[in-house]
Amino acid sequence: MERTVGILGGMGPEAGCWFYRKVIRSTPARCDQEHFRVILYSQPKIPDRTAFLQGRGESPIPHLNQAARDLEKWGADLIAIPCNTAHHFWEEIQAEVAVPVLHIVRETADMVARSHPQGSPCVGILATHGTISGRLYQKTLQAKGIRSVVPKASPQEQVQESIEAIKGGGDLNKAASIIQAATEWLAEQGAQAVIFGCTELNVLDSLLRPPVPIYDSSEILAQATVRFALGR
Amino acid sequence: MERTVGILGGMGPEAGCWFYRKVIRSTPARCDQEHFRVILYSQPKIPDRTAFLQGRGESPIPHLNQAARDLEKWGADLIAIPCNTAHHFWEEIQAEVAVPVLHIVRETADMVARSHPQGSPCVGILATHGTISGRLYQKTLQAKGIRSVVPKASPQEQVQESIEAIKGGGDLNKAASIIQAATEWLAEQGAQAVIFGCTELNVLDSLLRPPVPIYDSSEILAQATVRFALGR
Repeated sequence: MERTVGILGGMGPEAGCWFYRKVIRSTPARCDQEHFRVILYSQPKIPDRTAFLQGRGESPIPHLNQAARDLEKWGADLIAIPCNTAHHFWEEIQAEVAVPVLHIVRETADMVARSHPQGSPCVGILATHGTISGRLYQKTLQAKGIRSVVPKASPQEQVQESIEAIKGGGDLNKAASIIQAATEWLAEQGAQAVIFGCTELNVLDSLLRPPVPIYDSSEILAQATVRFALGR
Repeated sequence: MERTVGILGGMGPEAGCWFYRKVIRSTPARCDQEHFRVILYSQPKIPDRTAFLQGRGESPIPHLNQAARDLEKWGADLIAIPCNTAHHFWEEIQAEVAVPVLHIVRETADMVARSHPQGSPCVGILATHGTISGRLYQKTLQAKGIRSVVPKASPQEQVQESIEAIKGGGDLNKAASIIQAATEWLAEQGAQAVIFGCTELNVLDSLLRPPVPIYDSSEILAQATVRFALGR
């Protein structure tokens, strides 16, 4: 029995759409009918995750929980959330619904671990303030014996601004040059690869020439979603 | 009060995703929270519309009606269907729900009429067999005093094959060269513009150099959706 995929999107809308496209393109199908059903709920009114984690503004948790319950009620057999920062609240969201909520950070860390069966690699992380300061990736990677490196305070500020520029329809070329410089700095610190731990960053894909391989958390979650939907 | 947009997608999935992206990009918003809620229901199991209109296969009508009822039940305040051929059944779908179902063919024909305030223009139409043979566009345009021209039988066969290739992940360059030739032929017949009356065709956008302006029905429906969602 093929499953119906639920996508809790809108954080931001463009990142959710990009993720959905990756789900479609990762699906083995030769005509419309071979695709599976998807309910993409773009709920952009969910309060800003990073702002809340920094002690500013309303909690997104009740809104995330409500949206997950809605998706389950509408028939979703699994839920994917293309927003890394929202995974701070993954335990709360998963506790609200009986269907599985995939975990973008764990899926990405698993992929890094599978790609380095030997040794303990070092990877860089580019993500929002909320994701970085909450050590979402650092903790998950460490538990797998993977070392990680993150930008220093001032460049991290620029990464955050770039992510906000992508969300707000700002200057993509400027954002790309900041992200390019950040990947180069992470590589100089010994990172053998860089995780795009924010689902907005892949919007810059065609503008970047990163010096090391990129693990795109949005792409990795899309592949996990398709495997799950196909019952694998 | 801002409205929740319902998108009845999946016909095909990529066309629905493309349409959703156009809705996002047509929305005036500087951060996530300024976007409106969207429920995109990608229901690719709906039987092939053109096949049914040609007397082959199951009727898509009960499936379209069910999906529209689902979207209304889930909270959609309006429904947009990014599939031209499905608009053969628009009356049946609209009769099922209390919320408005936008009409891609009427929106597109209105746009053509607005762009030609004087005279009676002639436009070419590229669409599926179902849309062409059911005269969806021809009738709507004629009612507005707009003449139209469609490909002859054999090139129309190629247009249909191109659309199926786009849906099935086939050769996009081949599809683009067929659509390019079709737009050139339509222009030679006197078409001052060509309507992309199939939501798959904009996938070829960057591969085409059409000799006359294109009216992209997907783009036009996206703009109408945003206007409606903003209560204009």
